[in-house]
Amino acid sequence: MSGQKLFYLPLGGAGEIGMNCYVYGYGPKDKERLIVVDLGVTFPDMDGTPGVDLILPDTAWLKERRDRIDAIFITHAHEDHVGAVAHLWESLGAPVHARAFTANIARQKLAEKGYGGDVVQTASAWPETVKAGPFTVGFLPISHSIPESSALVIDTPAGRVIHSGDFKLDPSPVVGEAFDPDLWAEVARPGVRALICDSTNVFSTHAGRSEASLASDIEALIAGARGMVVATTFASNVARLKTLAEAGERAGRSICLLGRAMRRMIEAAIETGVLTGFPRVVSPEDASMIPREDLMVLATGSQGERRAASAQLSRGKYNGIELDEGDLFLFSSKTIPGNEKSVIRIINNFSEMGVDVVDDSTGKYHVSGHANRPDLERLQDIVQPQIVVPMHGEHRHLREHVKLAQSKGRAAVLAVNGTMVDLSGNAPSVIGYVDTGRTYLDGSVLIGAMDGVVRDRIRMALNGHVVVTVILDEEDEPLGDPWCDVMGLPETGRSNAPLVELLEADLSQFIGRAGEKTLADDDKLEDGLKRIARQTCVNEIGKKPEVTVVVSRLA
Amino acid sequence: MSGQKLFYLPLGGAGEIGMNCYVYGYGPKDKERLIVVDLGVTFPDMDGTPGVDLILPDTAWLKERRDRIDAIFITHAHEDHVGAVAHLWESLGAPVHARAFTANIARQKLAEKGYGGDVVQTASAWPETVKAGPFTVGFLPISHSIPESSALVIDTPAGRVIHSGDFKLDPSPVVGEAFDPDLWAEVARPGVRALICDSTNVFSTHAGRSEASLASDIEALIAGARGMVVATTFASNVARLKTLAEAGERAGRSICLLGRAMRRMIEAAIETGVLTGFPRVVSPEDASMIPREDLMVLATGSQGERRAASAQLSRGKYNGIELDEGDLFLFSSKTIPGNEKSVIRIINNFSEMGVDVVDDSTGKYHVSGHANRPDLERLQDIVQPQIVVPMHGEHRHLREHVKLAQSKGRAAVLAVNGTMVDLSGNAPSVIGYVDTGRTYLDGSVLIGAMDGVVRDRIRMALNGHVVVTVILDEEDEPLGDPWCDVMGLPETGRSNAPLVELLEADLSQFIGRAGEKTLADDDKLEDGLKRIARQTCVNEIGKKPEVTVVVSRLA
Repeated sequence: MSGQKLFYLPLGGAGEIGMNCYVYGYGPKDKERLIVVDLGVTFPDMDGTPGVDLILPDTAWLKERRDRIDAIFITHAHEDHVGAVAHLWESLGAPVHARAFTANIARQKLAEKGYGGDVVQTASAWPETVKAGPFTVGFLPISHSIPESSALVIDTPAGRVIHSGDFKLDPSPVVGEAFDPDLWAEVARPGVRALICDSTNVFSTHAGRSEASLASDIEALIAGARGMVVATTFASNVARLKTLAEAGERAGRSICLLGRAMRRMIEAAIETGVLTGFPRVVSPEDASMIPREDLMVLATGSQGERRAASAQLSRGKYNGIELDEGDLFLFSSKTIPGNEKSVIRIINNFSEMGVDVVDDSTGKYHVSGHANRPDLERLQDIVQPQIVVPMHGEHRHLREHVKLAQSKGRAAVLAVNGTMVDLSGNAPSVIGYVDTGRTYLDGSVLIGAMDGVVRDRIRMALNGHVVVTVILDEEDEPLGDPWCDVMGLPETGRSNAPLVELLEADLSQFIGRAGEKTLADDDKLEDGLKRIARQTCVNEIGKKPEVTVVVSRLA
Repeated sequence: MSGQKLFYLPLGGAGEIGMNCYVYGYGPKDKERLIVVDLGVTFPDMDGTPGVDLILPDTAWLKERRDRIDAIFITHAHEDHVGAVAHLWESLGAPVHARAFTANIARQKLAEKGYGGDVVQTASAWPETVKAGPFTVGFLPISHSIPESSALVIDTPAGRVIHSGDFKLDPSPVVGEAFDPDLWAEVARPGVRALICDSTNVFSTHAGRSEASLASDIEALIAGARGMVVATTFASNVARLKTLAEAGERAGRSICLLGRAMRRMIEAAIETGVLTGFPRVVSPEDASMIPREDLMVLATGSQGERRAASAQLSRGKYNGIELDEGDLFLFSSKTIPGNEKSVIRIINNFSEMGVDVVDDSTGKYHVSGHANRPDLERLQDIVQPQIVVPMHGEHRHLREHVKLAQSKGRAAVLAVNGTMVDLSGNAPSVIGYVDTGRTYLDGSVLIGAMDGVVRDRIRMALNGHVVVTVILDEEDEPLGDPWCDVMGLPETGRSNAPLVELLEADLSQFIGRAGEKTLADDDKLEDGLKRIARQTCVNEIGKKPEVTVVVSRLA
């Protein structure tokens, strides 16, 4: 065994919430065999990534070691764990393992990119396992806000590691397997070298609440509603959808699912057998014929996404359904930081329609899918790991989780993306750092976050764009005056004259005075024109725009 | 009196939180004399207003009636009430009235734009009043999170109106006047026709807490700190700054103010006599020589503003001061919706330094400056207005506040920006709508929100920008091939060839095949080139960029 080591390496998800991608390695130095856990995405925003479609982990390090990857495991079907599988799978090439529901979602994604269903192997739950090089991996059921979420039991010659995935300790999760403390204790009995653990809710000091605890409040709310009821939650929260739909059914309402993602999730859950007894649903077309007081709609878009069903309903008719005064809209969800403005916009739109909006501020209509601080402690007590490595958290979460583990007398290490941690010894040790980063899916192209493409877009958005065109003849003499096109700048400024005319006058003057050397040199000419264009804009409108200079030479 | 009417018209602040600007009118139809209450700003963001510096109410309606404006009153010195005064005053031209502290801040703003101090008249508190045409206006002290916040008692021939300004009912506000229920009852005794009332916290169901209630928790926190302590709050929350500074002083620490806005506010408060007994402060220069355990820093930037002191400290040294492992950073503030990501970024930066961050999640270190629902009810009970008109709120707040007033048997009306409400009768009636909107301060220029300038910036940020240049000779024959510059687009796409080369090839082909009519017609040529450029980009990179076509004709 000497010379062999077991390491943990997060490439995404450690130091952020989102874009999960973790690597485990075992073997002699630089020849370790590798497995990958999760291939997730995170979502772009206008602030830092305008125009970007999706954000993926930079897996260059893995691609360079492609021949050493024995398998990819997906813990559950949330986008931040499975969303990148179709974009990255081909470059990694290893078989993908997931439980039935997760596999169903992963296959849909792969199929959209033209890959066959055999890329993904359906795994059974623990005690069955998958052999992958020196690793033997089992899917250990754990409750979360999506069906069949699983921790991974990763057995290696250096001992057993448990990778928690996303989880909560729910004795009655409505759909899917309850947390089974006896099963977990049994798995832990041989000794667990390291627990790699979800940190999302480490700052929540009260014990987590069960999904089942919501049913009575939701039922009471819907039973008391007069008009149409629309509820939104994450499309993948199948348990919540069931609770909502059953509450609607009990109140004598027909149930309608609005939004493709939600229909897909329910279909996948039914197909794979994880969901049974879901009330019969009516199509949006039929729903629009049902009296509003007899209808309950479940809609996508709990985070205020502009194109999802909830936002569309807040702006008017969607799929033939339209809300009206006296209807009720329920956010059975929490707002993820950064989405507040979008969600508030929807609430105000509904307010204008006279629709009553109920959100989760009372805590009665939503529970978190992640383990709170006391639950994290309880899991440590059950698993009794030698080492705790917090993951799935921003830096502040990881740091707090490390402190929590240490306060219980355990070895713990704060490892952000790119930190390679040796788990072979009794205490964890950092043995290296790997370059990590983000890859953007931009239209149909994958680009690096540092390529400068998005930086240029942000600059144009902040500063506007001036295009200066100048034509020179064979003798480097200007043919006519330079001219300007501006985009994203005011038409007039301080002097009230058109900005374009002022720019062209100043640029003409510059060209008129420019010496032969400047006129003959594209770079010098460009620099000069840029400087003048910026100066004029600063004087006139108080802004320094991006300037593109196009020098055309007649040859 | 017949034919005379009293109206209320919000131009900003009703249907949003921010950018307050309210108009009251009295007189015969279309000849009403006008007063303006507050000239505030709201803040831009990357989502909707990239590159914009400030957002102001569109006061075109007022400018057209400039000769009818008798006065401008500023209730208090928060930016959303006074921030536009220097930008809009010249176009309105009426004298500005404010109490001493507010006047000091307003004069600073006006001075920066070159206006003299005599623009602003310093008003004394009720029972003194200011005559302005048919209006007699008094500044009635009320507690808020800034000194000398005042309600306005507006007497007109049609009766008394109370405009609450921003307020809370604080019996011990630390700095400035406590809420005086007896004084308010006395003012209300002659009868109040309408209460125009702050709606910010209408959804907060518990009674508001006093500013003074924070002192003991803040003292305990600071007394227990080992390293440097840095606390942030709104620069204008002079009472909080005093509480924080006194707690630091009691813990034997020297106090340092970091950030220009904070120093200004403290200076203004001392100059105008509203703040006394503030601990002696040391300069940042001196502070950097003091042992960290003996120092307490008060820093600007509680909302995560990139350039403010807190954000700068989270990125490294600022004014010679640098945080380190074991230091404490306190957010004695709440995060305004939309600022979560910026604040969280700071917390994570500090986490990386090993600095412990305490936020307001426990409720121990911050109280709101606005009246909660029970306080709104209490104020109604004291004032006994015939009519309640909610203001200072998004649509959802105004709607809830109307419901609250109606539930207490009062007439109430939901009036968003632009709604002219007649307050002359016993019940309010909407008598018209006025065009309202937003004006952007962009660099040094004021532009209309609907001018398309910012829309173009957003489009460039989302889609990138392609500039196509083509030169035609006197016979409309192309001189060489068209060429392209791209900004904010990937260099290569599907085919791995440079995007610019593909674009130029496709555009050349188009030009080569174009007929005489197309080549002779700028619009046709431009349309054709745009179409081709977009098509190529869609095929190659899956994006449809903004395209600017520059057609140069040699004459």
